[in-house]
Amino acid sequence: MSATFNSVDPRTGLPGASYDEASTADVEAAVAAAEQAFAHPALRERGTRAAMLRGAAARLRAAGDEIVATAEAETGLPEFRLRSELERTAGQLEAFAAVLDAGDYVDAILDSPDPDATPIPRPDVRRMLVPIGPVAVFGASNFPLAFSTAGGDTASALAAGCPVVVKGHPSHPGTGELVAREVRGAVADAGLPEGTFAHLLAAGIEVGEALVDAPAIAAVGFTGSTAGGRAIADRAAARPNPIPVYAEMGSINPIVVTDAALAARADAIADGLVASVANFGGQLCTKPGVVFVPGGAAGDAFAQAVAARLDETEPTVLLNERLRDALDAAVDRLAETEDVRPLGTAAPFSGDGYRHQPAAYEAPAAAVATGSPLLEEHFGPVVLLLRYLDRDELLGAVGRIEGQLTGSVHAQPEDDAELLGLLTDLLAARAGRLVYDGFPTGVAVTHGMHHGGPYPATSAAGHTSVGMTAIRRFLRPVAWQNAPAAVLPPELQDDNPLGIWRRLDGELTRDPVPS
Amino acid sequence: MSATFNSVDPRTGLPGASYDEASTADVEAAVAAAEQAFAHPALRERGTRAAMLRGAAARLRAAGDEIVATAEAETGLPEFRLRSELERTAGQLEAFAAVLDAGDYVDAILDSPDPDATPIPRPDVRRMLVPIGPVAVFGASNFPLAFSTAGGDTASALAAGCPVVVKGHPSHPGTGELVAREVRGAVADAGLPEGTFAHLLAAGIEVGEALVDAPAIAAVGFTGSTAGGRAIADRAAARPNPIPVYAEMGSINPIVVTDAALAARADAIADGLVASVANFGGQLCTKPGVVFVPGGAAGDAFAQAVAARLDETEPTVLLNERLRDALDAAVDRLAETEDVRPLGTAAPFSGDGYRHQPAAYEAPAAAVATGSPLLEEHFGPVVLLLRYLDRDELLGAVGRIEGQLTGSVHAQPEDDAELLGLLTDLLAARAGRLVYDGFPTGVAVTHGMHHGGPYPATSAAGHTSVGMTAIRRFLRPVAWQNAPAAVLPPELQDDNPLGIWRRLDGELTRDPVPS
Repeated sequence: MSATFNSVDPRTGLPGASYDEASTADVEAAVAAAEQAFAHPALRERGTRAAMLRGAAARLRAAGDEIVATAEAETGLPEFRLRSELERTAGQLEAFAAVLDAGDYVDAILDSPDPDATPIPRPDVRRMLVPIGPVAVFGASNFPLAFSTAGGDTASALAAGCPVVVKGHPSHPGTGELVAREVRGAVADAGLPEGTFAHLLAAGIEVGEALVDAPAIAAVGFTGSTAGGRAIADRAAARPNPIPVYAEMGSINPIVVTDAALAARADAIADGLVASVANFGGQLCTKPGVVFVPGGAAGDAFAQAVAARLDETEPTVLLNERLRDALDAAVDRLAETEDVRPLGTAAPFSGDGYRHQPAAYEAPAAAVATGSPLLEEHFGPVVLLLRYLDRDELLGAVGRIEGQLTGSVHAQPEDDAELLGLLTDLLAARAGRLVYDGFPTGVAVTHGMHHGGPYPATSAAGHTSVGMTAIRRFLRPVAWQNAPAAVLPPELQDDNPLGIWRRLDGELTRDPVPS
Repeated sequence: MSATFNSVDPRTGLPGASYDEASTADVEAAVAAAEQAFAHPALRERGTRAAMLRGAAARLRAAGDEIVATAEAETGLPEFRLRSELERTAGQLEAFAAVLDAGDYVDAILDSPDPDATPIPRPDVRRMLVPIGPVAVFGASNFPLAFSTAGGDTASALAAGCPVVVKGHPSHPGTGELVAREVRGAVADAGLPEGTFAHLLAAGIEVGEALVDAPAIAAVGFTGSTAGGRAIADRAAARPNPIPVYAEMGSINPIVVTDAALAARADAIADGLVASVANFGGQLCTKPGVVFVPGGAAGDAFAQAVAARLDETEPTVLLNERLRDALDAAVDRLAETEDVRPLGTAAPFSGDGYRHQPAAYEAPAAAVATGSPLLEEHFGPVVLLLRYLDRDELLGAVGRIEGQLTGSVHAQPEDDAELLGLLTDLLAARAGRLVYDGFPTGVAVTHGMHHGGPYPATSAAGHTSVGMTAIRRFLRPVAWQNAPAAVLPPELQDDNPLGIWRRLDGELTRDPVPS
């Protein structure tokens, strides 16, 4: 008899449906099937993979009502957000299909032979990216769709040609199962082997550990806490054959507000900040956790405005009991930290379900030290305003921030050109994305979007988990030297039958190799 | 008083000049200077970096006689090889300068804003690659120039804009010092800060460990043994902030010879193989360690021809005592392995210096199991011929090979089309470079050359240590969202002032952003 666990409605704390816990035998079976699928010729056809991704998108949209209703009951996220997230998830699958249509994601490079080259003759070298092998994906708690079962990690790995074994997040098992049903359907519709995609559910950690340890797994995608991501990265690094872990982890997403910006549009910034902090319970990797606000009267008024708006916001539903407990504990620690004072007056939430009263705190920027508790992440609707008295205090504190997903600046370019340059340099050195006069939440899925950053924001600063270049995580180069035409993949053949962009003797071109 | 160590002439075993051992204080000072240099605006100017790389190349050529003579005495490698390696090293520095001229290595991607995009409005997103920070480079024993002080790791890291701290290999300290002198000269000539480049010498492991641990080091490049590379990768993974290690490690570089190829050109293959195995003491990462040879009379004759030619080859000089001892031990283990028999009759080397008699051994391919001692690397002029009786035995044995830098096939395409396809698939799944009707040694430096492969050939299968894409190891993406023009790097500005290739709304173009 297998173990089971229940979903929980975080709005009430009441249990929902029961789900079978996957076993380590299930992990073995899924990975073995994935390994077989990886060797299947159908998975190498980019047209087949594109059709599967588009099929999955269409199926997810068709099953949208059922998926959204289930996700609502499992996460407490509002319907409009989940509908938007479903569309984003479907659109992401389709965007990767378009990347396959274009075909140049393989980064083909062809070098002509040159028998007279020095110091040694140059052979014919043709290189492209190929899929690395079966990929393990850990679904996120906070994005039941876009960063979970058929989210960005899964979409980009499947697009690359890598079978995927998902460890679904136990906070939204029913949602995961519904999405997995549709992906399996799309895999079957496209004529791909069953092992192309698997979805395992478990509340414990053994299944995830077995997945990271499975010899045939070639890489891991993860979205979650720094502690969770680091544990997986450490485990993967200790394997007999270490594998890369692409973990998108914690971030406090600092925002800087300059004097000039405050003078020009304090109200609009306060509105945007409150939405960015409190929407969806502040449970976003890109939620701003610290905001640098000038000292003085204008800054005081801004801080009071933010606090008042957060006070007026209803307590927000958190995803599960563990997150709620962790947030409560982290906020208690913050409130007790020297130099920190609460800005609002709303009472803490008490009642049914897992909720938290949105709140702002304040501390002097001068108190920020490297590794300071003031720079800890609070995953939920909480923000810390760091008040700076002058430019040196601001730049000094920003310079003590560790790796981040994002860094934002609200400034008036006319007034603050030099400051803006200095802040840009400081933030570019420690963040993956710089946002100007805006807020980091709401990550658009575009070709060039970068959702990553230096440790501890991620475990692999060279890569992104959002945007079209996310596919590169699951590819590796192979070079063919003096290969007969018959063994060359179409991407590398003389006549460029796919018409893709290639680098030929250093120049980008769609032309065939001159004969 | 600081510790010292001596270089050793491996041709005689006699000590040469004495060198000061670097201290961990020297590591701290070098890394601190590198961190300062990384923040220096001059290092961000790609023209300045290109001038520095070209200056280093010119200086190395000008000092060629001195460098080659020193390297000859420290490594026992022949003058013609060292002159070729020096030219390769200089050419590599210049090739990276050309990459900087072209400028599109930053992989610029620009996405236009779209307020009507669903499910959320799309901002203006511009993304490019930026340097990651100071890089530690471990010089290799076997390439005193091309994979050492100013070798590919150093050249690509400096090209990327990352300061470099080299831990020179103690097998060729004088060579390293001379090369470092020229690089320092080129750094000064270009007006770059002194901390851009440092060279530390040590015979012990403490300096290397301190370098890997140094908080400001952002990545490590390494060429050497699997044990050495793995130790560094493990250490880097255990840092408070883990960093990537690009270690190019062991490989047995399997070669398959088909019946048809043997029938067509056994003699030429034997000649090429013997050179590839024995040249430069067989001390190349790409030296073929195992060759799959058909059973039967033609294969027997081939095996005898290879053995006879190796017997006729003079004992080759090995780089140092440690390598010699390791090779002797590994060959003893091989000779004592069940199913293995020696093919040649030459006596083992005895005499002055560190040398080894080139030799071939033979075993049945059917005896190859996963993790078999038959698939161990022997770093030196030794090759194991694996005799296969039929296609299944061949494909079965090749399928048990772990990650490799290269895999080669000698075949006649007309006769072996299906076999060639199967071998290509098997080798592409486990090797970074496939060589047809040739030998893997002699890695040309080209745009698309790939010198990498799945573990244990490297610690990072997604990257290469040779070829122009090696620069990607030392870059990470940053995205600018809705950024004012004043803060955008030239690569991302509307009018494309550098004229580089960029991906604009998904399409590659050199055009400016339409206004």
